[in-house]
Amino acid sequence: MIAPLEELLAALTRLPAIGRRSAERIAFYLLAKPDHAARLAEVIGALHERIHTCDRCGNFAERDLCPICADPQREASALCVVARPWEIGHIERTGEYRGLYHVLGGLVSPSSGVEAEDLSVDPLLARVANEGVQEIILALEPRLEGELTAMHLLRKLKPLGVRVTQIAQGVPAGRDLESADEITLGRAFRGRVPL
Amino acid sequence: MIAPLEELLAALTRLPAIGRRSAERIAFYLLAKPDHAARLAEVIGALHERIHTCDRCGNFAERDLCPICADPQREASALCVVARPWEIGHIERTGEYRGLYHVLGGLVSPSSGVEAEDLSVDPLLARVANEGVQEIILALEPRLEGELTAMHLLRKLKPLGVRVTQIAQGVPAGRDLESADEITLGRAFRGRVPL
Repeated sequence: MIAPLEELLAALTRLPAIGRRSAERIAFYLLAKPDHAARLAEVIGALHERIHTCDRCGNFAERDLCPICADPQREASALCVVARPWEIGHIERTGEYRGLYHVLGGLVSPSSGVEAEDLSVDPLLARVANEGVQEIILALEPRLEGELTAMHLLRKLKPLGVRVTQIAQGVPAGRDLESADEITLGRAFRGRVPL
Repeated sequence: MIAPLEELLAALTRLPAIGRRSAERIAFYLLAKPDHAARLAEVIGALHERIHTCDRCGNFAERDLCPICADPQREASALCVVARPWEIGHIERTGEYRGLYHVLGGLVSPSSGVEAEDLSVDPLLARVANEGVQEIILALEPRLEGELTAMHLLRKLKPLGVRVTQIAQGVPAGRDLESADEITLGRAFRGRVPL
């Protein structure tokens, strides 16, 4: 195979969720569609120039502040803490939350050597102290890393007198009970609510 | 979501085999890996400048001739006819074929309005007449379009006195017989070979 095609396939197969077969399909599609190839090269090439990190919360931003921090309609009394900026989009799509966010930049992970000091915890504490925050909602993944991080944050936040909650864990919507694992089902029982 | 990210997701989801979820994973990966994003933009952007069509066979090429047509070791007495240039790579990987290729640029397709006149048939006939070709091997997909195309080619090639063959159809390797469809299994019976 000729070099430019091999180089494209090599760059494509390094992407997540793209195997050799998908890479070939994409490469041949791009060869057949010069306009789309030019457009894709343009948006990927300009990505890091155009996307920054919000000075306040760590979300993706085009300017100093992300659209959420810049929106005066959002309720500044609540901060939802997430590990990664892209999790904000998932929460926003629920339409259930009108407060602000704080991106930690990761989770405490003994296996990967990530400690609490590597995360954006001090800026979070500063925001609690300075921005009139009344509730911190932890939206961290319900696995070891998420729980270690939540424990650390709780220890740091409690002395500040702010209310700390975490999003509910339980059986996911639209699934039968048999497909839920035992830990999820156990948590759903412990977290049962009156009707 | 901010505009540069939406534009990237829009461009990614137009690619084959990439849904919204995969596009998000790729976008966030590219955001986290500036070097890879720059490299990908570069190879996609340069694609149409660097890749051409072989003057002789229609394969992908960096120069006037593709590496196969430019290789004096290949046997010029055999031409393998394929619909699309990327099928050549699959055949090359088998290591079973040492002749040259000819890319038709598609298949006769009544449903898509593609007729034999839209394909690279006249250049194929010219090659047979001028290049001392002794065998034409049709490697077209074993479906209606491939068979209509094969019938048309056979009609045009027979008068030239060249031998025309097609690759064998039968049960694929490494699968149990139950997973072969009836047409495939029927063809495998008709094409049975003595042991």
